[in-house]
Amino acid sequence: MSTALERGREVAQQLNPNLEEVLNDRYGEILPEFAESLMEWAYGRHYARPGLDLKTRQLCTIAALTVLGGQTGPQLKINIEHTLAAGASRAEVVEAIWQMAVYGGLPAAINGLNAAMDVFAAEDQVR
Amino acid sequence: MSTALERGREVAQQLNPNLEEVLNDRYGEILPEFAESLMEWAYGRHYARPGLDLKTRQLCTIAALTVLGGQTGPQLKINIEHTLAAGASRAEVVEAIWQMAVYGGLPAAINGLNAAMDVFAAEDQVR
Amino acid sequence: MSTALERGREVAQQLNPNLEEVLNDRYGEILPEFAESLMEWAYGRHYARPGLDLKTRQLCTIAALTVLGGQTGPQLKINIEHTLAAGASRAEVVEAIWQMAVYGGLPAAINGLNAAMDVFAAEDQVR
Amino acid sequence: MSTALERGREVAQQLNPNLEEVLNDRYGEILPEFAESLMEWAYGRHYARPGLDLKTRQLCTIAALTVLGGQTGPQLKINIEHTLAAGASRAEVVEAIWQMAVYGGLPAAINGLNAAMDVFAAEDQVR
Amino acid sequence: MSTALERGREVAQQLNPNLEEVLNDRYGEILPEFAESLMEWAYGRHYARPGLDLKTRQLCTIAALTVLGGQTGPQLKINIEHTLAAGASRAEVVEAIWQMAVYGGLPAAINGLNAAMDVFAAEDQVR
Amino acid sequence: MSTALERGREVAQQLNPNLEEVLNDRYGEILPEFAESLMEWAYGRHYARPGLDLKTRQLCTIAALTVLGGQTGPQLKINIEHTLAAGASRAEVVEAIWQMAVYGGLPAAINGLNAAMDVFAAEDQVR
Repeated sequence: MSTALERGREVAQQLNPNLEEVLNDRYGEILPEFAESLMEWAYGRHYARPGLDLKTRQLCTIAALTVLGGQTGPQLKINIEHTLAAGASRAEVVEAIWQMAVYGGLPAAINGLNAAMDVFAAEDQVR
Repeated sequence: MSTALERGREVAQQLNPNLEEVLNDRYGEILPEFAESLMEWAYGRHYARPGLDLKTRQLCTIAALTVLGGQTGPQLKINIEHTLAAGASRAEVVEAIWQMAVYGGLPAAINGLNAAMDVFAAEDQVR
Repeated sequence: MSTALERGREVAQQLNPNLEEVLNDRYGEILPEFAESLMEWAYGRHYARPGLDLKTRQLCTIAALTVLGGQTGPQLKINIEHTLAAGASRAEVVEAIWQMAVYGGLPAAINGLNAAMDVFAAEDQVR
Repeated sequence: MSTALERGREVAQQLNPNLEEVLNDRYGEILPEFAESLMEWAYGRHYARPGLDLKTRQLCTIAALTVLGGQTGPQLKINIEHTLAAGASRAEVVEAIWQMAVYGGLPAAINGLNAAMDVFAAEDQVR
Repeated sequence: MSTALERGREVAQQLNPNLEEVLNDRYGEILPEFAESLMEWAYGRHYARPGLDLKTRQLCTIAALTVLGGQTGPQLKINIEHTLAAGASRAEVVEAIWQMAVYGGLPAAINGLNAAMDVFAAEDQVR
Repeated sequence: MSTALERGREVAQQLNPNLEEVLNDRYGEILPEFAESLMEWAYGRHYARPGLDLKTRQLCTIAALTVLGGQTGPQLKINIEHTLAAGASRAEVVEAIWQMAVYGGLPAAINGLNAAMDVFAAEDQVR
């Protein structure tokens, strides 16, 4: 097992303990290597790196997924959950999204706010 | 003068004291309102807001401009300068860019790294 | 109150008299400044400007939202309504969308046509 | 009738015999020229060209629609069907999509895999 | 010769009399059909259509190329020339570009303004 | 050393024997892990996979980089070289690019053709 894969699994554990299992259940049949590759690349080769704390990394991800917009709606919601799990407040999430109106345009920011409101509402229902 | 404009000028002052003047010199002839609008909108309505510190805001901007890639090269370089001015280290800038390989693809991240290397080299020459 | 905000509210009034209120109802809780910022920036700093008539401005917006595609579906529909309110015919809206096949590709144009058909059908039902 | 249009109709016939009729039924009212233009341009001026076999052309389309992501979801599904009709296996479709994680980022690839899974499931239900 | 091709050549003549020849000189060796296809598709199947005047069509194109940004810089410049040839003023071109800050973000609008300034400066030198 | 890294180095060897070294020389100082990560992820986790031949994989990459356009210009050129190294003809490269006019719009395809012409001209000079 590669060191990157090990490190990735460790950091993903903090954000979303079932992530690899959930991905395997969904994508394992058409792409058995998928969940492991994602752990190694996204979490092992990026999030697990020193030099930037996990909360700031997650806020950067929120910003990026907001400006990418259309194609990343579902991933934005999952990462808003991860960002809250990394210790960010709802207000910080909203700020990171709203600032993106400057760079990705108002529609991207508005769609990002909609995603955040959906995540917050789902959380409130669980409580 | 709007409150948003005033707040925007104050925060821009910390990142780049000549920004409004530079923008006015360049774009004032074809669009006299341009520099003022940018101060009001980008800095007054976003960066000046409470809820997220300036350094984290700038790192989010780096992330967004990296994934937007092609159309934001010049703006990425200016914002790397602003991010360093907001107290981020070079390593933090590099981390925010490199993480974007996960979301915007490797080409976007590589072009972001190239932009950072150009900014760092220009800074080193000035010193 | 800023002049840009006043001018923005005036022009939005012509296109969609309840816009600021609707936006406030939806986004006011997580971002109290949102509706006001949008009025000031989008309508005050852009649509309210002299130099291009409102109908042509709206057709330009239709074109842009069509090529941006995925992330601007909901905004495209709202702006098709605004474009009709600014005096454009349905045929003009369809032409502005279809031409975008050249610049944003066929999928973007097709999705734009779908949005237009939805707006036209909703309007026909109301009548 | 233009030669490009004739050639386009011939190649579309192999991939999806009812395509022009389906497009005409849906878009003919707002844009009578639409289906014919698409046949001429997409199939006549591109797919019908010599120099690259139809199956490879379709796999290239899968790759492009995957990285374009958000705005091309419905078109990606239709083209996965066309790609299977052109002789590609499901595994080849999955490979072309998954490779795009490198260039368009993980969210684009994941959304592409979701589209493929939907198409495969729909096919399995028909059988 | 297709009707669409004939109509396309006619409308392109008004905007840029040498366009097909210039395109043929540049791309004819690797893609002999290129210039003719572009005339047929872009000008014959879109610009030549009734329902929207040529100047408004060109302003829509300016808007779209501005928000698409990075990948369309050279095409934006050519289309600014065509838009002026279709009867738009420089101010109208600037307005169409600047409005795009709302939809495509500030970087896209700034790069669009830079393109316009280059075209205007080149024109002024010729005079 | 991870199996994915080993497999990646093997396949990269066929396309561009100096790739890892070149990347290390350029990016090793600001990001020591960069070249290794790219070998592991792009080549080990994607290109090295069975199920699609290397030439078709490269043509899919050409298609994707063409539609992504602006932000991937330098990567498109390198991948055109890799695609020729994987056994594709110049005509096949041109076809994969030109077809993208349908999906990514004409500007993206034209910029892709320009990249191909640059690569072909550079190769012809070396000979």
